[in-house]
Amino acid sequence: VTALTDTRAIERLFADYAFHLDMNQPDALAALFTGDCEVSFSPGSDLVGRENLRKRLDGIGTYFAATSHHISNIAIDFAGDDMADVRAVLFACHRYRDSRPDGLLYGQYRSRVVRLDAQWRFHYHRLLTTMSTSFHIEIGHPIGRSD
Amino acid sequence: VTALTDTRAIERLFADYAFHLDMNQPDALAALFTGDCEVSFSPGSDLVGRENLRKRLDGIGTYFAATSHHISNIAIDFAGDDMADVRAVLFACHRYRDSRPDGLLYGQYRSRVVRLDAQWRFHYHRLLTTMSTSFHIEIGHPIGRSD
Amino acid sequence: VTALTDTRAIERLFADYAFHLDMNQPDALAALFTGDCEVSFSPGSDLVGRENLRKRLDGIGTYFAATSHHISNIAIDFAGDDMADVRAVLFACHRYRDSRPDGLLYGQYRSRVVRLDAQWRFHYHRLLTTMSTSFHIEIGHPIGRSD
Repeated sequence: VTALTDTRAIERLFADYAFHLDMNQPDALAALFTGDCEVSFSPGSDLVGRENLRKRLDGIGTYFAATSHHISNIAIDFAGDDMADVRAVLFACHRYRDSRPDGLLYGQYRSRVVRLDAQWRFHYHRLLTTMSTSFHIEIGHPIGRSD
Repeated sequence: VTALTDTRAIERLFADYAFHLDMNQPDALAALFTGDCEVSFSPGSDLVGRENLRKRLDGIGTYFAATSHHISNIAIDFAGDDMADVRAVLFACHRYRDSRPDGLLYGQYRSRVVRLDAQWRFHYHRLLTTMSTSFHIEIGHPIGRSD
Repeated sequence: VTALTDTRAIERLFADYAFHLDMNQPDALAALFTGDCEVSFSPGSDLVGRENLRKRLDGIGTYFAATSHHISNIAIDFAGDDMADVRAVLFACHRYRDSRPDGLLYGQYRSRVVRLDAQWRFHYHRLLTTMSTSFHIEIGHPIGRSD
């Protein structure tokens, strides 16, 4: 039962992540990460630490008119009582404030989550790009698909 | 274990909701709601009661050639043994019977579900619109994104 | 608890299915099926047996530059301790190696999964097509939507 309850809590972490992102709530979003988190959304944009992540998130509100993040196919492998590796699939639509067409992103998340103070948080979080259309980030981290 | 079983049953309620919608089965769809349900898909279209909802659903078959509802990011907060508030994310594609382009909808559901006769049902159900493309409903309920 | 654990394992089977498909890992993908599986992605393409499925999967790598499969709305009905019928919804984007536009597929999976050697696998797996755009398979199995 513990593993099942933890599984639900980790799925909820991903749901809250998408929610705070789409609601443009950078404080609540950053609070889902550990203080020493390592985060990367694209090559050359590695972020270390919740404070640095928090600053980066400030741009969301002015850059996008709206975003919608749809997370599915969540696969969780526990690596101890308080640690798990998570793989998930993302479909996201980004509407820009200027007149560009919507940016569509098809990707994967690869994350390590840890339990701190009875709360699951992201310790490591990386977005991989399967493909995209009209997206402002031209080169994402590859998923490593076989040729 | 009870909470976990109820969580599964509530997720199943959302899966069945999408299924009956996409299969154009208005009777089975309406049966997922309480008799005194409150439902709103857009401003000015509030519906009260399962019978009124049932009548509204009659138009689905003739208006759409096909719909596909993809529900993810389901977050459930119990408000007692037989009641829960649910937040979920929707991506839906609507193909119209006329030659319009497909209507794409990115939204959120905000629902209150209750257990009646050992069956979870929608008591309150509201669709919020994050953004849309070529959708026949021009103005949806806002999600309340921060500026 | 057993049913809940099995439910998680079956959801994981679908997540792994999508993962190996998108990563172009036909061996790992075929290993998710029983030796005597029955699989059909479109009318006239019925496959019987894991070996025949495995051969068909060889084309994925050369035909697609990328695919992204998003599976949600998973509904599981157990038909015994070691068997379950599963309904799920699929949104998939296919990027072709030539210059065609991306193929978008909105569909449903109807599957029967069985437990063999403590591992859940697909015994029967069928893709139904709700609608599609620019997809290379023009006629899919219908979902059976009411008129």
